[in-house]
Amino acid sequence: MTLPPDAPGPSVPHLLLGVCDYPEQVPQDRWAPYARQQRELGLSFVRIAEFAWSRMEPHPGEYDWAWLDEAVETYAAQGLRVVLCTPTATPPAWLVRAHPEILPVDDQGRVREFGSRRHYDFASPVYREHSRRITRAIAERYGGHPAVVGWQTDNEFGCHATSRSYGGASAAAFPGWLEKRYGSLEALNAAWGNAFWSMEYAAWDQLAPPILTVTEANPAHALDYARFCSAMIAEFQAEQVAILRECSPGRFVTHNFMIFESGFDHYEVSRGLDFATWDNYPLGMLEFFAPPGYEAQKLEYARTGHPDLVAFNHDLYRGLLAGVPGRLGRGGPGTPTGPWVMEQQCGQVNWAPYNPLPADGAVALWTAQAWAHGNDVVSYFRWRAATAAQEILHSGLLRHDETPDRGHAEVAALNLEGFPAGEVPARVALLHDYESLWIYDLQPHSAGLNYWAQTLAYYSALRALGADVDVLHADADLSGYAVVVAPAITLMTPERAARWTAAVEAGARLVCGPRTAFRTVSGGTPEGGQFGPLAGLLGARLAQFDSLRPGLETRVAGPGGEYEAFAWAESYRPEAGTAVTHRYVGGPLDGQAAALCRPGGQGEGVVIGAHSPALIAEVLRGVLGRAGVDTTDLPPGLRLSRRAGRTLLQNWTAGPLTWNGIQVPPVSFQVRPD
Amino acid sequence: MTLPPDAPGPSVPHLLLGVCDYPEQVPQDRWAPYARQQRELGLSFVRIAEFAWSRMEPHPGEYDWAWLDEAVETYAAQGLRVVLCTPTATPPAWLVRAHPEILPVDDQGRVREFGSRRHYDFASPVYREHSRRITRAIAERYGGHPAVVGWQTDNEFGCHATSRSYGGASAAAFPGWLEKRYGSLEALNAAWGNAFWSMEYAAWDQLAPPILTVTEANPAHALDYARFCSAMIAEFQAEQVAILRECSPGRFVTHNFMIFESGFDHYEVSRGLDFATWDNYPLGMLEFFAPPGYEAQKLEYARTGHPDLVAFNHDLYRGLLAGVPGRLGRGGPGTPTGPWVMEQQCGQVNWAPYNPLPADGAVALWTAQAWAHGNDVVSYFRWRAATAAQEILHSGLLRHDETPDRGHAEVAALNLEGFPAGEVPARVALLHDYESLWIYDLQPHSAGLNYWAQTLAYYSALRALGADVDVLHADADLSGYAVVVAPAITLMTPERAARWTAAVEAGARLVCGPRTAFRTVSGGTPEGGQFGPLAGLLGARLAQFDSLRPGLETRVAGPGGEYEAFAWAESYRPEAGTAVTHRYVGGPLDGQAAALCRPGGQGEGVVIGAHSPALIAEVLRGVLGRAGVDTTDLPPGLRLSRRAGRTLLQNWTAGPLTWNGIQVPPVSFQVRPD
Amino acid sequence: MTLPPDAPGPSVPHLLLGVCDYPEQVPQDRWAPYARQQRELGLSFVRIAEFAWSRMEPHPGEYDWAWLDEAVETYAAQGLRVVLCTPTATPPAWLVRAHPEILPVDDQGRVREFGSRRHYDFASPVYREHSRRITRAIAERYGGHPAVVGWQTDNEFGCHATSRSYGGASAAAFPGWLEKRYGSLEALNAAWGNAFWSMEYAAWDQLAPPILTVTEANPAHALDYARFCSAMIAEFQAEQVAILRECSPGRFVTHNFMIFESGFDHYEVSRGLDFATWDNYPLGMLEFFAPPGYEAQKLEYARTGHPDLVAFNHDLYRGLLAGVPGRLGRGGPGTPTGPWVMEQQCGQVNWAPYNPLPADGAVALWTAQAWAHGNDVVSYFRWRAATAAQEILHSGLLRHDETPDRGHAEVAALNLEGFPAGEVPARVALLHDYESLWIYDLQPHSAGLNYWAQTLAYYSALRALGADVDVLHADADLSGYAVVVAPAITLMTPERAARWTAAVEAGARLVCGPRTAFRTVSGGTPEGGQFGPLAGLLGARLAQFDSLRPGLETRVAGPGGEYEAFAWAESYRPEAGTAVTHRYVGGPLDGQAAALCRPGGQGEGVVIGAHSPALIAEVLRGVLGRAGVDTTDLPPGLRLSRRAGRTLLQNWTAGPLTWNGIQVPPVSFQVRPD
Repeated sequence: MTLPPDAPGPSVPHLLLGVCDYPEQVPQDRWAPYARQQRELGLSFVRIAEFAWSRMEPHPGEYDWAWLDEAVETYAAQGLRVVLCTPTATPPAWLVRAHPEILPVDDQGRVREFGSRRHYDFASPVYREHSRRITRAIAERYGGHPAVVGWQTDNEFGCHATSRSYGGASAAAFPGWLEKRYGSLEALNAAWGNAFWSMEYAAWDQLAPPILTVTEANPAHALDYARFCSAMIAEFQAEQVAILRECSPGRFVTHNFMIFESGFDHYEVSRGLDFATWDNYPLGMLEFFAPPGYEAQKLEYARTGHPDLVAFNHDLYRGLLAGVPGRLGRGGPGTPTGPWVMEQQCGQVNWAPYNPLPADGAVALWTAQAWAHGNDVVSYFRWRAATAAQEILHSGLLRHDETPDRGHAEVAALNLEGFPAGEVPARVALLHDYESLWIYDLQPHSAGLNYWAQTLAYYSALRALGADVDVLHADADLSGYAVVVAPAITLMTPERAARWTAAVEAGARLVCGPRTAFRTVSGGTPEGGQFGPLAGLLGARLAQFDSLRPGLETRVAGPGGEYEAFAWAESYRPEAGTAVTHRYVGGPLDGQAAALCRPGGQGEGVVIGAHSPALIAEVLRGVLGRAGVDTTDLPPGLRLSRRAGRTLLQNWTAGPLTWNGIQVPPVSFQVRPD
Repeated sequence: MTLPPDAPGPSVPHLLLGVCDYPEQVPQDRWAPYARQQRELGLSFVRIAEFAWSRMEPHPGEYDWAWLDEAVETYAAQGLRVVLCTPTATPPAWLVRAHPEILPVDDQGRVREFGSRRHYDFASPVYREHSRRITRAIAERYGGHPAVVGWQTDNEFGCHATSRSYGGASAAAFPGWLEKRYGSLEALNAAWGNAFWSMEYAAWDQLAPPILTVTEANPAHALDYARFCSAMIAEFQAEQVAILRECSPGRFVTHNFMIFESGFDHYEVSRGLDFATWDNYPLGMLEFFAPPGYEAQKLEYARTGHPDLVAFNHDLYRGLLAGVPGRLGRGGPGTPTGPWVMEQQCGQVNWAPYNPLPADGAVALWTAQAWAHGNDVVSYFRWRAATAAQEILHSGLLRHDETPDRGHAEVAALNLEGFPAGEVPARVALLHDYESLWIYDLQPHSAGLNYWAQTLAYYSALRALGADVDVLHADADLSGYAVVVAPAITLMTPERAARWTAAVEAGARLVCGPRTAFRTVSGGTPEGGQFGPLAGLLGARLAQFDSLRPGLETRVAGPGGEYEAFAWAESYRPEAGTAVTHRYVGGPLDGQAAALCRPGGQGEGVVIGAHSPALIAEVLRGVLGRAGVDTTDLPPGLRLSRRAGRTLLQNWTAGPLTWNGIQVPPVSFQVRPD
Repeated sequence: MTLPPDAPGPSVPHLLLGVCDYPEQVPQDRWAPYARQQRELGLSFVRIAEFAWSRMEPHPGEYDWAWLDEAVETYAAQGLRVVLCTPTATPPAWLVRAHPEILPVDDQGRVREFGSRRHYDFASPVYREHSRRITRAIAERYGGHPAVVGWQTDNEFGCHATSRSYGGASAAAFPGWLEKRYGSLEALNAAWGNAFWSMEYAAWDQLAPPILTVTEANPAHALDYARFCSAMIAEFQAEQVAILRECSPGRFVTHNFMIFESGFDHYEVSRGLDFATWDNYPLGMLEFFAPPGYEAQKLEYARTGHPDLVAFNHDLYRGLLAGVPGRLGRGGPGTPTGPWVMEQQCGQVNWAPYNPLPADGAVALWTAQAWAHGNDVVSYFRWRAATAAQEILHSGLLRHDETPDRGHAEVAALNLEGFPAGEVPARVALLHDYESLWIYDLQPHSAGLNYWAQTLAYYSALRALGADVDVLHADADLSGYAVVVAPAITLMTPERAARWTAAVEAGARLVCGPRTAFRTVSGGTPEGGQFGPLAGLLGARLAQFDSLRPGLETRVAGPGGEYEAFAWAESYRPEAGTAVTHRYVGGPLDGQAAALCRPGGQGEGVVIGAHSPALIAEVLRGVLGRAGVDTTDLPPGLRLSRRAGRTLLQNWTAGPLTWNGIQVPPVSFQVRPD
C-alpha cells in the first residue's frame, strides 16, 4: 500500500493504517525486518520517537541523532511515512536532577517523582525552555525529511492525573493569571462569592491552589484553577507547535488525546493543531475509564468494549477542531487530514484491573468503527510487545517472541478499499463543554452520577435509535443541525443562551438534560435561578432537584407510560405556553413537571429533568421524529454508523443479532450502502 | 409574634422560631424585604455574622462595622431578635498569610490550608490573641444593642475533623499539658504502660502527637491526646465567653454543636455556656453521620431521617448542661433559656453522598420533635439558598430565585401555641461519656460496631418501648431516675462506681452493656479485670469476649426465647447471688452467662453481654416494668415523645401507622394530652 | 518436664512447649508465681526481653540489668530454659530523638514516627551501630548463663510494612548497592530496559527509591529495590548474629518470622540462623493475611483458621534452611534444633478486623498440627493478657485477672509423648521464590489473583489429596522428590532451568502453573518469550494469556470433564511430542492448549495454564498417581499430616467428619500409625 502522491480532494482515498514502533527498545538488527513486515501487512504510517529523549540527548546538550537517522531511513526505505514526536512527556533523569523544580505536585501536596512518565509541571519556565529546545533540535533535524509527514506533540496530555500541578511553578503562576483575568481583587472576590466563609483575598499573593483545605474549597476557586491549568497546557503546546511550523513546513501537527480525559479544555488545547488524534483502547476504557453506572456492562462487553463509549470518543475527538461535521484540518496533497486513531488496541492492554483478551473479530470491528466515525488513519499500538519495563504485559501486533499475535491476522484481513473517505452525515449535534464538566463534578450532589454518565445516557439513547451524532462544543455553530442535545451543559452565559435561542428560532429542536443553565461562568447560580438566561427559551423555572440513592424510587409518567428515574430528579415550574409532557408520580415531586416542551420559532426547546434512560429514549424518539430524522430500534449491542454514503452495521455481542432482516454474526461488521 | 417582655417563669411561653441569615452574601437592597418576610413568617430570631470576619475586618486592624450596624437595625426594625456570632471559624486570608503557624495539621502530618473554614489550631497562642481581639471588637460594638439577645461562639467545633491538630502549636503545647497532668515521667510511663514496647519517655520534649506511628500508637497516648485537644477547645471558647460576659451583660452565650461530633468532651466545652444548641440535619445525619449498622435504614428513612438518631442528639444536647432533666441554663426575663436547634434543615442539604428532598411534612415533623425533646427555639438554616460558593446546592426557606421553597410552607403552617414550654418527664437516664467513646473506638476489636452504634442500640430500644430518656454524663447526679442505662461506659473510676452503686442502693435499676468498666482512667484494664470497681455491684467477672464477623452465629437463650447476637458477645462468671437470666447457646461460649441480674439495695444491677437488639429490648422491657415505668410496643417508625403534659405522636414512615387505635398519617405528628 | 541433658540423636524426644512472657510489664511479685505456674503447666521454655530496650538502657549508655538478672534467675529456678531477644524492634525514645535519621520513610514519603514499634531503617549506619552495641551488651551479660539456651533476633522483620524504607538511609545506600550489582550504568539501564520511557540514568546519584512516581515505576527498578531492602535486613541481622555467636557460644540463634510476610527474601535472611521460627496466629492469619479468594472461608473457618494456610506457613518456614526435608539446623546436645512456632495463638488476637474466639479444641489442634509439620517446640503467646497499651484485647494463657483462660486448659491436657520427634516424609516439593513473588505482584494484571493465591491453590490441592509437602526454594536440591510443583515461579534463569531439567531427567515429575518462566532475572521477558530457557523441557511456547474478571467464563475440557477457570487463563503452542491434555472451550482461546504434558528422561514436565482449582486437582492427582505417591480424597476441612511414622488426622470444621471409616469429631485430631 502506498499513498497516491498527488491526490487532490479528500487527502486519503480510504482508510489507511499505521503502527507505533519503538526502535530504541529493540536491537538494531530488528529494524529492517520489522519495517519490511510492516509494509507487507499493509501499513502506511509509523509513529516513532515518542519517549526517546534520553536517547536523543543522553547528556545535557549532547545530541545523538545517529540512531534516529538510521531508523527514519529504514522505515523510509520501505515506503512508510513517519510521524515523529516531541519527546517531552519524558524528561530524562539528568534534567530532572539538575532542575527538580520542574517536577509537578499532586493534590496531596507531594512532589511527583522521576521514574515513569509525565513528571513535569506545564507552567515551569525552566521546563518550557527545555521543551522548546528539544523541540527545535528534533524539528531542525527532521523537519524537512521527505519521509516525515507529521508530528505528534508530547503524549496523552493529562494522563495519570497530570493536567494539574498543585504547587511549585503552577502555584507561582496562578495569582498572575488570576490578576489578568479579574483585574482587581474586588472582582475576583465578588465572582467567587468569597464573602461566604470569609474567603476574601486582600492581596494577590494570598492566592494558592485549592488543595488540602479543611473541607471542600470554593468551587469557583477550583473552577478557575482548572481553567488556569488548562491554559498552561495550551501555552506549553503552542510553543512547540510554533517551532514545528517554523522548522517543518507542510507537515501536520497533532496530539494524541486520551480516553475521557477531563483535566483540561480539549477545545482550547487542540486549537492550532491540524487535526486531533486519540488513543483508542476499548477494553481498558470500559474497565478503567467508564463513568459510574457501567458495572454490569463491564462483564457483558468485557471482550469488545462498549460500543457507545468508544463511539462517543470518536465523535468527541472528531469534533474538537470543527464547528461542522466532515473534513477537518488544513489537509494538502498527500497529507492525511485526520482525525486519526493514533493508538489502537490490538490485543490485551495491561493497565486496567482486569485486562481480558479481545474477542475474535474485535480488532477488525474497532478499525471499521473508527473509519465509520470519520477517522482517516488507524495506527495500532504497538508493533511488538515490549520485553522490558512497565508494559511487558501489553500486547502488540507481534508477540514477545516476534511471532504474529491474534490482532495481526485481523489487520491483515482488512479490505481498506471498503472503507472510503467521506462525510459523517450527522443531523444531531450533542453539546459538550469542559467547564460544565468541571463545575458539575466539583459538586455532584448525588453519588453515582457525574457529567460523563449523564452525557453518555443521552448519547447512548441517540445511538440506540440509529442516529449519527456530532459532538460539538457548547458554543459551536449549530446551523444545519435538526436536533441539538445538551445533556449536561450546566454553565450558561448570555452569549451561549442567545446562540441556542437563535438556533431554535431557525428550526432546531433543542433537548436539555437536568442542571442545564444552573450555573454561571463564575460557578454561581443565576440570581434568578435556573435556567438563567435560557429561561425564556425553555419557558420554565426550576422547582426542585432531588438526589436519589439506589433504591429510592422516583417515577415519571407520560403518554408513553411510566419510567423509573435514578440518581437525579428535577422538577419545573412551567410558564404558560410550555407543555408539560411528563410528570412525577409519588414522592416529594408528585405531580410536578418532569419534562417540558416549549415551541419557539421554527423549533422547540425540550427539557428532561429526570435521569431516566427510558424516558430520555422516549423523548428523543419523539423529537427526532418531529425533526424528520429517521430512527430505528436497535437491539442492545447492535449499532449503525454512517459515512461516505455507506452504513456500517456492527454487532458488539457474543451472539448473532438481526436487524431489518439482516443477520449479523457475533463481533463482526458489514458495510452496506445507506 | 413578639416575646412577652417580662415573662417570669419559663422564659418562653411556647416554641419560638428563628432563621440563619447572611446579609453579607446578598445585595443590601434585599435586607429589608428579607427581614419583613421573616417576621411575616412568624420568626422571632435571626442568627447572623457567623462567618463574616473578612467583612468586619477587611485588613489587619481596620474594622468595617457600617454594614453590620445597618443589618442589625434592619432586623430590629422588624422586631426580630438578633443572635450574633464570633466569626472565629473563618480567619481571613490576611491573618493566615501573616501567621501561617495558626493553621492546623491533619492526622497525616499535612498542614491544612486556607480556602474553606475551620483552618486554625485551638492551641495557637497567636490565634488565641486574634480570637480574643475580634471577639472583644464585636462584643464592644454590639454587646449592649437592645436587639441583640445572645451570642454564638464560633461555629460547629470539631466539624471536618478539626478537633485535633497533630502538629504545630498543639504539638508544642502537648508536653506541658502532660507534665501538668502527671507531674513526673515515671507517672506518665506507668499510667500509659509504656514498658510494653519500650515506649518509655526520658524527657518531656520527647513527647509528640500520636501520628504516623508504624503501627497503632499506644491507646493511652491517643486517649490523652484527645483529652488535651478537648481542653484546648474549652480554653479557646472560655476566653471568648469571658469577653462576651464582660461586654454583653444579660445576653445568653451558646455554641452550636454538631451531630454526633466525637472529637472533644462536650460536657467540658459546654461548661460556662447558658445552654447548648445544635445543628439538626436529619437527612444528612443519616447519610453521613450514622454509625455502622444503618445501611438498610438509609433507604427506609431517606426522606425523614431516622427518628432515634435525631431524638438522641436532642436528648444529648439538652443534657449537656444538666444533671437533671427540664429547665437548663440561667435564663432571665425575655431570654430564651434553651436548648435550641440553632440550625434546622428545611430542604435538601448538600454535603452527604446523597442529598434527597425531605418528604412532605418532614420539616414540620422535625420542628415538632425538637419541641417535644425540650427545645425552646428552632432556627432554620438558611433563609435563602446561597447563589455562590460551597453550599450552592443546599436549600433554604427561599429558593435561589427568592421564591418560597417547600419548607417555607410547612413553617408557615405551624401552630406554635400547640408547643408549650415545659418539662420532659424522663424517668430513664442513659449515660454517656466522651472518654469512654474515645477508648472504645481506639480499639473497636470488631469491625462494624462502635461506641455510638452500641449506645444507639439501647437508646432505640428504649424509644421503641415508648420511654422518654435523658442522656446524661456518666458522672451526673442520678437521683430521681427509676432506670439508669449505661450502654458503653467502658471507663470506670472508683468514684463513678461508688456513685452508681449509691444510685442502685437508693432504688435505681442499672442496666450495663458489654465492655462496661473494662478500662481504667489511663486506658488500661483493672488489675482484677472487668468489672473493676463495679464487680461488687454487678456480682460477676468477665469470662470471655467474642468478636463476630457478619454471619458468625451466636445465640442467646432465656425465658423469652432465643436471640441472635451480632458483632460482640461477652460472657461472665457470676458470683453467688447473681441471677443468670440468659445464656449462650452453641459456639465457644455455650452455656456461659450472657445476661445477669444482681439485686442490690432497693435496686438492681443488670448486665447484657451480647450485642443483640432483641435481647436488649426484652431485658429493658423487664427492667422498666419492675421500675414502674410504663412501656408500650411501638411499630417501627412510630415514636412518642412527652413534654409539658402532652404527648407528641410521630409517624416517620411513608405509610399510615396505628397505635392504641390512633391513626397517624404518613410523615406527620399529633400533639395529645398525656 | 525437663530436657534429657545429653540426648544424642534428635535433640528433643518429642514436642516441647514454651511461652512468651514479659516480666517488665507486671509487678515483680508476680514473677515467681508465674514461673511456677508455667512449669506446672508443662512448659519447658520461656521467651523474654523482646521489647525491653528502654528497661535495659533507660538512658544513653546507662544499663540496668538488675531486673533482668532477677527475672532470668526466677525462670531458671523453676527449670525453665530461657530464650532471650535482641530488643532492636523497639529503639527507645531517647535514641530516636537524638538520632531522628534512624526513622524509616513510608511509601508515601512520610517519616514513620516513634510511638509503637519497628520504627527504624535497616540501612541506617547510626542504627546499625546501636543495634550492635545493645546486642553486645545483652549477649555479654547473658550469653553464658546456663539457663539461656538461645536467642531470637529482633521481632517479626517486615511486620507493619517495615521491610522497606523509601527514603533516608535506605535512599542514600541504594545507588551504591546498585553500582556494586551492575558495575556500570550502561548495564543497569540495559537490564532495567530504561529506554522504555527515557528512564535512563546518567549518574549513580540520580537513582532513588521507586516512590511517588507519576504512574507505576519500572518493575525492574522496584524489583531491585526489593532486593536491596532484603539485603539490608540480611546485613542488619548478620551483624547481630556474629556478636551472639561470639558472646554466647553453644546457644541457638533464630528469628521469629511472620505469616505470609513478603517484603524480603526469607531464604537470604535466614542464612546463618540455626533454624527458623514463626508466629502462628491462625485466626488473625485468615482475617488479615489471607490472599485474595478466601472471603467465604473467612466465615467458614472463622474459629479455627484455614488448615492449608497454616500448614503452608509451617512447611514454608520448616524449609527455609533446608534443601531436604527433616532435621534442620546445627543442633547439639540439649538444644532443640527447630523449627519452632515461637508465638502460638492461644485465644483471641486483637489486630484483625474481627477477632473471634477460637473454637473449643482449636489450641490443641494447632499445637498438634505444628508438631506434625515438623516443629520441635510450640511457644504460646502470651502468658498473661496485657493490662495496658496496644494489645489489651489480645488473649494470653491467663486472663487479665490472672485466672487461667480457655487455652490454658487445652494446653494442660496435651499428651506430649504422643508427638514424637521425627521426619516429615514428604515426596512432593513445592517451589517458592521471593523474587518471583515480587515480580508477579508488581504486575498482577488480573485483580483478585496474586502470587500467594496462585501458590496456595496448588498447595491446597495437594493437601486435599493427602500429600505431605516440602516447600523449598526454587533453586533447592530436588533429588529424592517424586513430584515437584512450581505454581508461580515466574523468574527463570538458565541455571534454574538446568536444575529443573536435570531433576526431570532423573525421574521427577514437574508441574508448572501459569506465568512460569515468563520473566528474566532483570524482570523482563525472555527474548524468545515464555518459557525462555524452560521451553525445551516443557516442549511449548506461550500463545496467549487472558485476564478474567469475575463472571467472565472460561472453560477447559479434558478427559475428566469440563472445568471452569478464574482470573487467569494461559494457552500454549505445543511442539511435536508434547501432549495437549486439556483444551479451552469457547472464548478467544477456544481449542487452544490449556494443559500440557511433555515426557522427559525418566520424568515429565506438566504445565497448567488455567487457574482452575478443579483442573489443578485433577492434573495433580494424575501426576501423583504416575509418580507412585498415594492419594486419597479428603472431605473439605479434613486433613492428614505425617511425621515420625504417624499420621495426624485433623478435623477443622464444626461438624464431625469421616475418612476411611474413621469418625473425627469437630475441631479435633487423632494421632495414628501411618
